Amino acid sequence: MLEKILNPNKSDFVKLSQRPVLDNSTLMTGVQTIFNEIKRNRDAAVLNYTEKLDGIKLSSSVYDITGVNADSIEIEESLKNAIKLAYKNIYAFHCAQKSSGIDVETMPGIMCSQRSIPLTRIGLYIPGGSAPLFSTVLMLAVPALIAGCKEIILCTPPDGSGSIHPAILYSSLLCGISAIRLAGGAQAIAAMTIGTKDIPAVDKIFGPGNQYVTAAKQLAQNYNVAIDMPAGPSEVLVYADATCIPEFVAADLLAQAEHGSDSQVILVANSVWILDKVNDHLTIQISNLPRKAIATQALSHSKAIFIEDVETAFDFINEYAPEHLIIASDKAESYINLIKNAGSVFLGNYCPESAGDYASGTNHTLPTNGWAKKYSGVNLDSYMKKVTFQSITRTGLNNLGATLITMAEAEHLQGHANAVSVRLNY
Amino acid sequence: MLEKILNPNKSDFVKLSQRPVLDNSTLMTGVQTIFNEIKRNRDAAVLNYTEKLDGIKLSSSVYDITGVNADSIEIEESLKNAIKLAYKNIYAFHCAQKSSGIDVETMPGIMCSQRSIPLTRIGLYIPGGSAPLFSTVLMLAVPALIAGCKEIILCTPPDGSGSIHPAILYSSLLCGISAIRLAGGAQAIAAMTIGTKDIPAVDKIFGPGNQYVTAAKQLAQNYNVAIDMPAGPSEVLVYADATCIPEFVAADLLAQAEHGSDSQVILVANSVWILDKVNDHLTIQISNLPRKAIATQALSHSKAIFIEDVETAFDFINEYAPEHLIIASDKAESYINLIKNAGSVFLGNYCPESAGDYASGTNHTLPTNGWAKKYSGVNLDSYMKKVTFQSITRTGLNNLGATLITMAEAEHLQGHANAVSVRLNY
Repeated sequence: MLEKILNPNKSDFVKLSQRPVLDNSTLMTGVQTIFNEIKRNRDAAVLNYTEKLDGIKLSSSVYDITGVNADSIEIEESLKNAIKLAYKNIYAFHCAQKSSGIDVETMPGIMCSQRSIPLTRIGLYIPGGSAPLFSTVLMLAVPALIAGCKEIILCTPPDGSGSIHPAILYSSLLCGISAIRLAGGAQAIAAMTIGTKDIPAVDKIFGPGNQYVTAAKQLAQNYNVAIDMPAGPSEVLVYADATCIPEFVAADLLAQAEHGSDSQVILVANSVWILDKVNDHLTIQISNLPRKAIATQALSHSKAIFIEDVETAFDFINEYAPEHLIIASDKAESYINLIKNAGSVFLGNYCPESAGDYASGTNHTLPTNGWAKKYSGVNLDSYMKKVTFQSITRTGLNNLGATLITMAEAEHLQGHANAVSVRLNY
Repeated sequence: MLEKILNPNKSDFVKLSQRPVLDNSTLMTGVQTIFNEIKRNRDAAVLNYTEKLDGIKLSSSVYDITGVNADSIEIEESLKNAIKLAYKNIYAFHCAQKSSGIDVETMPGIMCSQRSIPLTRIGLYIPGGSAPLFSTVLMLAVPALIAGCKEIILCTPPDGSGSIHPAILYSSLLCGISAIRLAGGAQAIAAMTIGTKDIPAVDKIFGPGNQYVTAAKQLAQNYNVAIDMPAGPSEVLVYADATCIPEFVAADLLAQAEHGSDSQVILVANSVWILDKVNDHLTIQISNLPRKAIATQALSHSKAIFIEDVETAFDFINEYAPEHLIIASDKAESYINLIKNAGSVFLGNYCPESAGDYASGTNHTLPTNGWAKKYSGVNLDSYMKKVTFQSITRTGLNNLGATLITMAEAEHLQGHANAVSVRLNY
């Protein structure tokens, strides 16, 4: 099933790590038109796009949930309990990321501090479509709650009856979100960027989406709105050694492949027999998969790579910088120090990516497309900014003053020097 | 000197906070041409631009400093000592930002962790021009050293003799930077984005610059290179109460105003007499300033605002979200809880912005243009990415498995459920 590559040259690692390049320049023109239209006609424009693209005429994008009680929502009790457990684990892990701040007296009388302060108003985008991504509601809203963001706006496209999936509603209520707006696609991103009467402009936009949403988030940055991270198709890289269980590896690769036909799936193993065994299990397991067609397409451009030397294997993995990295091994911990670039890492034979996708506690909003080399996944810090403070006493300025004046004058900034000397001479 | 505004309406706060809008769309076309040219002709293109724009023909952009000893560099001993003290304070404050990571057992058998891992190769841009910004070398390189970035490339334009300012060289050596490249402007950013033989492509680009550099950094993001933050003209907001010393406030405003004619300078005070007194001192102090012409221009579009109520004053300040916020007061600490949006805060009458610009220990690379609402200034985290890990035992998966399957099936992702059940059934 997977194309086999044996002992590739190091010089090919960059090429082997390349993802398909998406040229979104034509897309951008269309998305810019949507931004212009939202800027001109605000809510009327949003509702027009909703009618045109989601096929439903709404009188307002406001989805009123006043008085709706989570308990009364009609989803299976088992799903409610699963969502509550996921919430609890995500809450615990992101809560542990809180920092009480830093205080350092760098010199007598010079106190430097750093504090994390929450963003005020954030926007979450939850895609509609075939699968109701209620798990993404938890992943994006729980850390916002912990950070203390004052306002959370959630945009999601309406279904055919002008409503949203009950599991999305349930998850939103669990997270205390009261501002749900029925708007999807680039128009939702444009509205959260520019601001309308019903959809306020936000400081930062979080969340996944199709290529229109991705392009709109990229454009939003030009309007001074922050975004969680650039987005691309989801991906997994599994590293398997002789202690792996090929049946599990095949299942993990398929879990990624079913996401979309553009999903990236890579297997790296230190024995050729692993590649063959995994391929055998892929053939068996894929036959019963409901999303078999999608998974087959994804696998068709995926690779199984044999690299015997472990250091070389991790050189490749770090060059690839996968969103998800599974270490399929009984001694997974022994590889940790070799990992330089990855979004989230799954250690051991009993740690499927699904665990992090839903409920282990880690976040599932992660850098794709090699961005794991330079971007973190969503974490508590994504909802805060770090502000520095310095407090200087008269004695402190006596201690530091001459240094400041010397440096300012060497940079030809006499005004900077004067701000010190006017105090020292007072 | 400063235009006085008395008790503005809250509804005017957004308008009063607006910075001049720079349309860089024509600039972008020129910068894109530079990127295309660098992509086509690599080092030859860089050297061509250097000849055309910096007026010097180089045979290579590599600035060889092999064997150069910091002690032998010809700058005043007092400047060397000042730079060393600044280095020490910046090092101490950024070192305290190190995190040992987070480990949480969210459920029995489910261990979730977060670790900070350094970026591998970063690029620093240090502008040339009238003032040698050696302080920026310290601010950008010291945290990179602490983070453990493997490679630091420093680009700076050559002077007329194909050399760089000795204070920049001294600071670079102090920070252990060995890879200095003589390249400036958009062509330096393009080279660090695309990569040439002499200037390697980097993961992330840090540093200030003129509008061409700013536009080039914006463009670099489209090529998958990260940047420290968007940039705009530097700015200060001083909040002064009855315990301020107007002479000091005037000096601080001038220190900012001398940066550039587009600098933003705002005074907010809770008494009108403060505005008048500060204006008097501005008139006196500006007369002897070497960069008087620049400062005068900056002050011409700056404002002094009287807001009597302290909460209202901070509503405005948080809407403005200044890069630098000085609290000119004997009881500065009492205002801290009112501060929601600022890059760096200077507390008390003896804490000029110059302290943070050079040597208190905090970073001087900070969000301008209201971006302090959503971006942190440069800090240790800017040089690292946070990677999550999960380690799950067989027992852990037994505990979490049913939850994962329920959620996966509710999202119609059977492959995700299979990756769990194949393990539970093994």
